[in-house]
Amino acid sequence: MSGLFISFEGIDGSGKSTQGQRLAETLRAAGREAVLTREPGGSPGAEEIRRLVLTGDPARWSAETELLLFTAARRDHLERTIRPALEADRIVITDRFADSTRVYQGATRGDLRDTVDRLHALMIGTEPDLTFLIDMDPATALERGLARRSGEDRFEDMGLGFQETLRAGFLDLAAKAPERFRVIDGDRAPDEVAAEIAAIALPRAGIAP
Amino acid sequence: MSGLFISFEGIDGSGKSTQGQRLAETLRAAGREAVLTREPGGSPGAEEIRRLVLTGDPARWSAETELLLFTAARRDHLERTIRPALEADRIVITDRFADSTRVYQGATRGDLRDTVDRLHALMIGTEPDLTFLIDMDPATALERGLARRSGEDRFEDMGLGFQETLRAGFLDLAAKAPERFRVIDGDRAPDEVAAEIAAIALPRAGIAP
Repeated sequence: MSGLFISFEGIDGSGKSTQGQRLAETLRAAGREAVLTREPGGSPGAEEIRRLVLTGDPARWSAETELLLFTAARRDHLERTIRPALEADRIVITDRFADSTRVYQGATRGDLRDTVDRLHALMIGTEPDLTFLIDMDPATALERGLARRSGEDRFEDMGLGFQETLRAGFLDLAAKAPERFRVIDGDRAPDEVAAEIAAIALPRAGIAP
Repeated sequence: MSGLFISFEGIDGSGKSTQGQRLAETLRAAGREAVLTREPGGSPGAEEIRRLVLTGDPARWSAETELLLFTAARRDHLERTIRPALEADRIVITDRFADSTRVYQGATRGDLRDTVDRLHALMIGTEPDLTFLIDMDPATALERGLARRSGEDRFEDMGLGFQETLRAGFLDLAAKAPERFRVIDGDRAPDEVAAEIAAIALPRAGIAP
């Protein structure tokens, strides 16, 4: 059985982190080794780069420099965490991957979207086998997000209109890559959401549902 | 009068830092504002990235991740130090720029040379107006370099053969971009080298020699 690379995407407060964790638990209960990771970060080097980007004055890095730093972090995450796990036939579940960069850069610096794609093609290349987009009402997600502020939530300060732009960006990506994306209605009880995700992911992991 | 962007390149111990400094002094004595800078580093953000790359276990970053980190540092250096100075009609003198990346990556990971060029075109774009390659006998340069080890001299440990590869790499770049490069024989008294550099740079800066 080969490894499987799964990402969870969505706006902050959509419940994607919780759902990623629940899927990992379900897979482990079914006897598979699941590695739960996140971006930005996910490997010791990438976590150092994350700290460099996300601490200090938010204006100290330009969008272009930040994009290069996050791509460096992603490359390290891919080399040190994701690829070794996949080669050992594990299932990798990541909370955010390149789609987040595409959507956040598209919403804040739309002129860089083409650069984002070209940089990804040049230095990363890999896409997940399966991406769960946890889609939900931005007003509800924003409330959840604001309730557990971490000090790194630079985007949640930008309000509801911005969250709506992000949601539209994720849905647009999903529409363009339907073979990889599964759009999940996150506006339901967590158990119900988790059951739908498990029903999709388990067969892909070679486990009878 | 517009700004002028000058780089000094060459193997460690070639005297390029000293010569960059002397040119800055000569330009200042002639009444021009000269900004002396260096890579990796050259701006507060780039210096932080430099520390991240050059401290700790040298094997902790892959060549690809390191290339992304150095490109992030170069982008910051360009935006925060080089461009503002050029826009203010100053002369910028940098100790190393993208040619160093080309030559060091070419010598250590030749398979990445094309990636280096594509990444530069995508995220940096700028070349110096004038590049002085201080060319010299690698055995002499290596002796000089070893005499003032800084703890960051990862390449000087690789011996004379490696320095010869670097020298050939710089000469090859210079041959391919003769409109930008001036190859200076660094195997002479520093005063003599400085005089030749000044004779080339001063007219370019609009100063009668």
